[in-house]
Amino acid sequence: MTARVLFSAHERHFETWADALLESIRDRGINVELDFRCADPARYDYVVYSPDSELTDFSRFVNLKAVLSLWAGVETLAGNETIGCPIARMVDPKMIEGMTEWVTCQVLRYHLNFDLFLAAKPGEWLNHMGPPLARDRTVAILGLGQMGQACAGTLAALNFRVVGWSRTAKNIDGITCLSGDAGLDSAVSEAEILVILLPHTAATDSMFNSTLFRKCRRGAVLINSGRGALIDDDDLVSALDDGTLAHATLDVFREEPLPVTHPFWHHPKVSVWPHISSDSRASTASAVIAENIHRGETGKPLLHLVDRLRGY
Amino acid sequence: MTARVLFSAHERHFETWADALLESIRDRGINVELDFRCADPARYDYVVYSPDSELTDFSRFVNLKAVLSLWAGVETLAGNETIGCPIARMVDPKMIEGMTEWVTCQVLRYHLNFDLFLAAKPGEWLNHMGPPLARDRTVAILGLGQMGQACAGTLAALNFRVVGWSRTAKNIDGITCLSGDAGLDSAVSEAEILVILLPHTAATDSMFNSTLFRKCRRGAVLINSGRGALIDDDDLVSALDDGTLAHATLDVFREEPLPVTHPFWHHPKVSVWPHISSDSRASTASAVIAENIHRGETGKPLLHLVDRLRGY
Repeated sequence: MTARVLFSAHERHFETWADALLESIRDRGINVELDFRCADPARYDYVVYSPDSELTDFSRFVNLKAVLSLWAGVETLAGNETIGCPIARMVDPKMIEGMTEWVTCQVLRYHLNFDLFLAAKPGEWLNHMGPPLARDRTVAILGLGQMGQACAGTLAALNFRVVGWSRTAKNIDGITCLSGDAGLDSAVSEAEILVILLPHTAATDSMFNSTLFRKCRRGAVLINSGRGALIDDDDLVSALDDGTLAHATLDVFREEPLPVTHPFWHHPKVSVWPHISSDSRASTASAVIAENIHRGETGKPLLHLVDRLRGY
Repeated sequence: MTARVLFSAHERHFETWADALLESIRDRGINVELDFRCADPARYDYVVYSPDSELTDFSRFVNLKAVLSLWAGVETLAGNETIGCPIARMVDPKMIEGMTEWVTCQVLRYHLNFDLFLAAKPGEWLNHMGPPLARDRTVAILGLGQMGQACAGTLAALNFRVVGWSRTAKNIDGITCLSGDAGLDSAVSEAEILVILLPHTAATDSMFNSTLFRKCRRGAVLINSGRGALIDDDDLVSALDDGTLAHATLDVFREEPLPVTHPFWHHPKVSVWPHISSDSRASTASAVIAENIHRGETGKPLLHLVDRLRGY
């Protein structure tokens, strides 16, 4: 069998991905023709896609079997009405590892008040009593997909009291799992540290707004490595200004790079991170794409299919 | 039985410890007379000791069964020739937990280059490729006592490649354990992140000096939460200045609080922490002291005995 694949992404990704993709697909026993520029749209079986490509209109890709996302976030694909074939998210084990490391460090940074010590002036010996132990600190993980589950598990292994929340009920060993609106209220009222790992969908757009912030434990901190549009930016600034929330660490934004004039860059209670928490890694993510191409070629259902109605 | 105990520590510790100690000792079925000011030295069976007390001459404590340290470090006790009875270190499970959390956060902070992002200026979108995963990063834990072992285990669970080193050979599941001089050379030549959790003894005094730094992997970073005197301060500054080491995070110093004039406060490649990495916690540490008093009263060997020859 031969799979004709278009790698539709910004040029800077070619070098990282080309060899790994070719090798992974061939390793599955599939002949592959991998194009980095679109020849004839009707020619392709698969599009491997990143939203930084120029492709937005898929209507001429009339023979497409699937669109395979390079990344975990698929909001630009899910709502694209020119796509008639299945869409698959990326669930990359190394991306999950990287996210777990980043989230764990951010949670520990808040838990141990690292910013205070890093900013100490010469002679400032801030030797008051240490913070509570992790076992006395509640962290809420909002979003229990693969990344949320991995982060919850790692933080629980570090002794944190972890409360997980997802829209639909889940059951995860060792984690208190809440769901639905009432569950969300309960999770945010308990946690001192909130970690957002939700997808951006119609249902989650601006869900972190004044109404929700008012339900948070006073002085809680927020870590967002989900999507920028989950947060109402103005409401977050207000919540920080009036002390509802104590601090926010944001890795994702409505506009990226975050414009230099945006208040987040200048707010003393916001740490701006440049969308670096974690990325798909070519070495393992290519194998996920190869697996889905193999499934497509052998008539098996694809992994990590996007539910177009839910938007992820 | 009745144990007469002198709590010999700076006054500020009384409030934290008094109730917990009394309760823990009584819970072991021992009547206790706990003094916070020394009446008649000959009266005491046990001294619970912190080096911030004024007591240095134990020669009049002629009936002493043991000196029980409040803290993990015992260098001031081990070398005290006026002490003729056994000395016990503190091995407090919550102190170990706190140290593990602090070390894990420091290691992740270096691993993920957090200082760079925390210092980003408005508009600085440092969105280059992310760091390697923990699985591609080697951390050396120097010192494999209870704290070193706990830190090594937690870092290994986070996927770091952990190399442990101790003077005498040890065997710990899942950790590459090196020992002796050759083992030390090997550990420091491999690791990108070095964590010092050794006691201060005659053998470890200034062991982190130019000779050892020259054997380190170039650009390694150093985290010291053992004791300040393990490091030759001038040699460390030289190693940072010439790029042998890239950065150091120090929580312990030869003089504490670290004098404002000390070069460490002013060096751009040094983070000074105010000896806050972890402390004994009264709730659990009191139970350790009570256990040792119970052992003393019932003729059993004490736990965590100091080897006066080795100095810890």
